[in-house]
Amino acid sequence: MAKIEFLDDVTVELVDFMGNDRRVVQAAQVSVVGKNDPENFARDEGLINYLSGARHGSPFEHIVMTYYIEAPIFVFREFMRHRIASYNEMSARYKELPPRFYIPNERRNLVQAGKSSHPDLVPGTDEQYNIMRWSQEHVANVTWENYRDQLDAGIALEVARNVLPVNIMSQMYVTMNARSLMNFFSLRVDSDEAVYPSKPQKEIEMVALKMEKIFAEKYPLVHNAFLKTGRVSP
Amino acid sequence: MAKIEFLDDVTVELVDFMGNDRRVVQAAQVSVVGKNDPENFARDEGLINYLSGARHGSPFEHIVMTYYIEAPIFVFREFMRHRIASYNEMSARYKELPPRFYIPNERRNLVQAGKSSHPDLVPGTDEQYNIMRWSQEHVANVTWENYRDQLDAGIALEVARNVLPVNIMSQMYVTMNARSLMNFFSLRVDSDEAVYPSKPQKEIEMVALKMEKIFAEKYPLVHNAFLKTGRVSP
Amino acid sequence: MAKIEFLDDVTVELVDFMGNDRRVVQAAQVSVVGKNDPENFARDEGLINYLSGARHGSPFEHIVMTYYIEAPIFVFREFMRHRIASYNEMSARYKELPPRFYIPNERRNLVQAGKSSHPDLVPGTDEQYNIMRWSQEHVANVTWENYRDQLDAGIALEVARNVLPVNIMSQMYVTMNARSLMNFFSLRVDSDEAVYPSKPQKEIEMVALKMEKIFAEKYPLVHNAFLKTGRVSP
Amino acid sequence: MAKIEFLDDVTVELVDFMGNDRRVVQAAQVSVVGKNDPENFARDEGLINYLSGARHGSPFEHIVMTYYIEAPIFVFREFMRHRIASYNEMSARYKELPPRFYIPNERRNLVQAGKSSHPDLVPGTDEQYNIMRWSQEHVANVTWENYRDQLDAGIALEVARNVLPVNIMSQMYVTMNARSLMNFFSLRVDSDEAVYPSKPQKEIEMVALKMEKIFAEKYPLVHNAFLKTGRVSP
Repeated sequence: MAKIEFLDDVTVELVDFMGNDRRVVQAAQVSVVGKNDPENFARDEGLINYLSGARHGSPFEHIVMTYYIEAPIFVFREFMRHRIASYNEMSARYKELPPRFYIPNERRNLVQAGKSSHPDLVPGTDEQYNIMRWSQEHVANVTWENYRDQLDAGIALEVARNVLPVNIMSQMYVTMNARSLMNFFSLRVDSDEAVYPSKPQKEIEMVALKMEKIFAEKYPLVHNAFLKTGRVSP
Repeated sequence: MAKIEFLDDVTVELVDFMGNDRRVVQAAQVSVVGKNDPENFARDEGLINYLSGARHGSPFEHIVMTYYIEAPIFVFREFMRHRIASYNEMSARYKELPPRFYIPNERRNLVQAGKSSHPDLVPGTDEQYNIMRWSQEHVANVTWENYRDQLDAGIALEVARNVLPVNIMSQMYVTMNARSLMNFFSLRVDSDEAVYPSKPQKEIEMVALKMEKIFAEKYPLVHNAFLKTGRVSP
Repeated sequence: MAKIEFLDDVTVELVDFMGNDRRVVQAAQVSVVGKNDPENFARDEGLINYLSGARHGSPFEHIVMTYYIEAPIFVFREFMRHRIASYNEMSARYKELPPRFYIPNERRNLVQAGKSSHPDLVPGTDEQYNIMRWSQEHVANVTWENYRDQLDAGIALEVARNVLPVNIMSQMYVTMNARSLMNFFSLRVDSDEAVYPSKPQKEIEMVALKMEKIFAEKYPLVHNAFLKTGRVSP
Repeated sequence: MAKIEFLDDVTVELVDFMGNDRRVVQAAQVSVVGKNDPENFARDEGLINYLSGARHGSPFEHIVMTYYIEAPIFVFREFMRHRIASYNEMSARYKELPPRFYIPNERRNLVQAGKSSHPDLVPGTDEQYNIMRWSQEHVANVTWENYRDQLDAGIALEVARNVLPVNIMSQMYVTMNARSLMNFFSLRVDSDEAVYPSKPQKEIEMVALKMEKIFAEKYPLVHNAFLKTGRVSP
């Protein structure tokens, strides 16, 4: 039987991307000058900042990125609520999922401090961490054993998978444009700089931060404009 | 501790709906006569059939339905890949999920007959059913115990839920227009009448069939046109 | 020949609508309590305001409205850039357009005060109004005559219509949900209350204001929350 | 005064594109094998054909193209009904439009043969062509003169443009994914090979054919699959 792996992190890799900061300028300038060669424009940065601050979002849609992501199912459940995106994910109907389970490490806040409808987590005790860890390892082991038992008995993948918990890792390719990505970052990263603060679950924030780091490298002026406008998607 | 419930069915209820068969006619006729009173049109049925067969889909978008649905998480995972829809779902970050788990009944096909990439399931033996049922009940019991143990130890909902399996029941409201609904029905119901056959998982088909039954009652001419055109969404 | 009409206004009528303020509460509460009967909820207003201020937009998507609109083509050109909407419009391929042309009245600002890329119009002189009016009536008359001449010579509608100006009136049915509508109102109404000010063209603002008035009557709590949050769509 | 130009053609240029035929394979294979290096896959063509024929559309969404297009406003009016796309267009609020007008050449069918609701055009006589051409040149000249007169009198761009006809040329950048593009091609090209025939207006077909030619060059296996499946978008 495959050895069960426990992970406390997610994977984000850039697969492909299109456009650059200047593409935003080029697209925006078609309004006022028509077809244009973005090499001719000085002051790209000023225009990008203006577009972002004034929430003229459409020129940002011509920048597109494709990422590969490995994360637990409960993260993908939240991710796929973002509808301006293209997804292909590993299927538990067609494939035996790999025995890889996400369990938070010791640095993850464990205890709810506020009301349940306003998550505001604080660190747990060592004992709490141990209870959580023991429970989640135990359930992973039990479910995996029962998953495999069913498969060994000839039960179809799509039926046997019923027992798999939402912290099992899945994999996907996702393609989003810069406008949709910035909306994703605004909702899925908890930042003091945000005009509209959001309290995402830690694990989707781990994905979002890795995505945003790559985004910032590829499109530095666009990302900087996003920061300047208080992390509000244009 | 709450008693664990095992269910072999899903729930679909109509919450609200907008428009009727004639709204499709009214919307389509604006192309050729402008604003119109649909009471004046004879031969609604012919026009609706024509629009459906010729794949003029936009007039069907003014019909909108809101459903309440209870189904296992693995069904909602597939459902939410449909992006032309509005969703609000129970959150395991904000609420302790009810201990309700889906387990297939004896009539569900259990064994994969074809290649794994082309699901084609056939009945299992009694022994196979018993193995599946025992495993899934066992995992539900173990996970629920460990979920509750973590909560009792003060672990936050959003962390403790890691152990919950994808066959735990969730609830949502979903709003879709008729065009998107017919696309959903075309992909999520296995029908001999379909021009483009689809092999959905049984459980999302159970949801889709209940939704389609209500749809057919409210919009009989539109639904009939959908059938006539081989279950191809316009 | 049909008499040419000149109009200085647009038409907006409510065709149908779905949901009410409480539907937003019902949809939002599914997160924390599951299926619910909105009659049981007190303090709807507080929750709606919270959702709006925190930009939790999805519960607003279950409210849907269908409008009939008559407005000039240049307004529909701007309107149809809003993609979360369903449209059916009169077609100049299928119908001889009625000879109805929009010309601004004396109260419309005529002169650009700022830079061309930041429209900020101020009143024109009487002479300027007369020049504008004369030109636009003249062009309407000339184009209509040439449109009809081509049709009388047997030229197809879709070719003859090339000459029609963008101020000829068209008609459409449009269906949008409350979230998309509030985004439309935020961009297409110039308001001192707006956190993100917008400078829409006067004529689409005329449409938006009429739509928003009906919206406010049907969904007073939702509309009030929109105002309280500075006209930012949730 | 700028010299008026009459054009009988449209312009389509590729600005950027992302992905290749193998990206479709890579995205599809994540379902069954997870993250993968598409270099490892033989038989790409077979899989792409299968996905297309079975209408598994999502893997095609990771291919994205950006085009520059110059075409008359009446074409952009039809184009922008396609909502799974990103647009930036020249604005007559911000810029004096160039005096470039589309007028069909002698090869364009001019006369409606069927019912007005089912366009089916046949060639016109020389006399009909001359009437059409004279009318359209005359209107272009009159409207341009009146547009310029208003601008010379200090009338704002957004008001003066009311007189411009729908055959004046505009310019845009548009970004679409391969799935949306194939839907566009299926609706906007009249082909005997189409399972669902469409009767687009000639001028948007001119745009679509130029776009499809570039698409076929960049993604030959995907395009071939589209042809094999009767020009039905997956």
